[in-house]
Amino acid sequence: MTDRLEAQFAFLKEADHLKSVLRASRLIDDSRFENSAEHSWHVMLYALVLADQAEPTVDINRVLKMLLLHDIVEIDAGDAPIHGNVDYAAKAAEEEAAAERLFGLLPDDLSHEFKDLWRDFEAGESAESRFAKSIDRIPTPITNLEIGGGSWVDYNVTLDQIDARVGTPINTGTPGIWSWLRPKLATWFARNAG
Amino acid sequence: MTDRLEAQFAFLKEADHLKSVLRASRLIDDSRFENSAEHSWHVMLYALVLADQAEPTVDINRVLKMLLLHDIVEIDAGDAPIHGNVDYAAKAAEEEAAAERLFGLLPDDLSHEFKDLWRDFEAGESAESRFAKSIDRIPTPITNLEIGGGSWVDYNVTLDQIDARVGTPINTGTPGIWSWLRPKLATWFARNAG
Repeated sequence: MTDRLEAQFAFLKEADHLKSVLRASRLIDDSRFENSAEHSWHVMLYALVLADQAEPTVDINRVLKMLLLHDIVEIDAGDAPIHGNVDYAAKAAEEEAAAERLFGLLPDDLSHEFKDLWRDFEAGESAESRFAKSIDRIPTPITNLEIGGGSWVDYNVTLDQIDARVGTPINTGTPGIWSWLRPKLATWFARNAG
Repeated sequence: MTDRLEAQFAFLKEADHLKSVLRASRLIDDSRFENSAEHSWHVMLYALVLADQAEPTVDINRVLKMLLLHDIVEIDAGDAPIHGNVDYAAKAAEEEAAAERLFGLLPDDLSHEFKDLWRDFEAGESAESRFAKSIDRIPTPITNLEIGGGSWVDYNVTLDQIDARVGTPINTGTPGIWSWLRPKLATWFARNAG
């Protein structure tokens, strides 16, 4: 019992460091960059509020657990900005090693459960994963529209890039939201094109 | 449909401000104070990892939703430090008004669902609420033990105060954790008593 609790708390203490992983996205008042822990909270709230946009078979409780865990690997592997120049194969190997080390701090039953949830999310093949990956992409454009572009300006992003890197996952998991969001993005980029 | 999405996103944008509500607790590397959004993420992780400590009837999925929403009222009402001097009746009235305004941004079905979850958490009477309120109290002592006292030093806290304000809720929802944690706290306070 005590050994089990020690392992559970070793993981929970290590997980605290996700609060110090900074993303390319910002707060909606543009006061600072966002960290991956508060982002994880926000995307869970997005998932619960927008659950009516998911395919009917989606288990929202599994989605919330996926999103709770989805970025923990960044404690070791860092955040990969969606519009940055990233070696995706190298990043995937780093994240797999991070999942082994971090979830490996837990007792075996929890370690397996969490790795399964994280790998399901990463694979993007289950209905829950498609919805979770769509939700994960929505907050940054919503915020960027409010703050004059945010990371779009920092990374010189074009509407074509948005369609490919943001539109594809959003349209896959929540097409109703992409239909609503795409015209707002088109208007913004038409007004702000270099 | 569009009106519904507009209401959903109005709430999600307003909720972003929880990332700017600072608590009296700190990160585990003692680099800064913690905000209520990243705290909310962390307590959800605590709940999922420590679910085996809950009463057998507890619905962990409802607990996760409660903890996702439990601090959103702080956007209007602010955080009330557990060892601070707080007028609890006035704070409760402020939080009730905050719940009406903030959850009131949502479509009616979600507004009712979220207010019900938040009021269930606040009341502390259901098995889920007892577990959630216990979990909400655990991370700060875990962190303070790592960083030389943290908010205990700032607020001149005694072990008697810890027993009353932290021990009571933890022991109510997760007695197995309190039995494990209490001796560690007693040792720390014996070594560091003024």
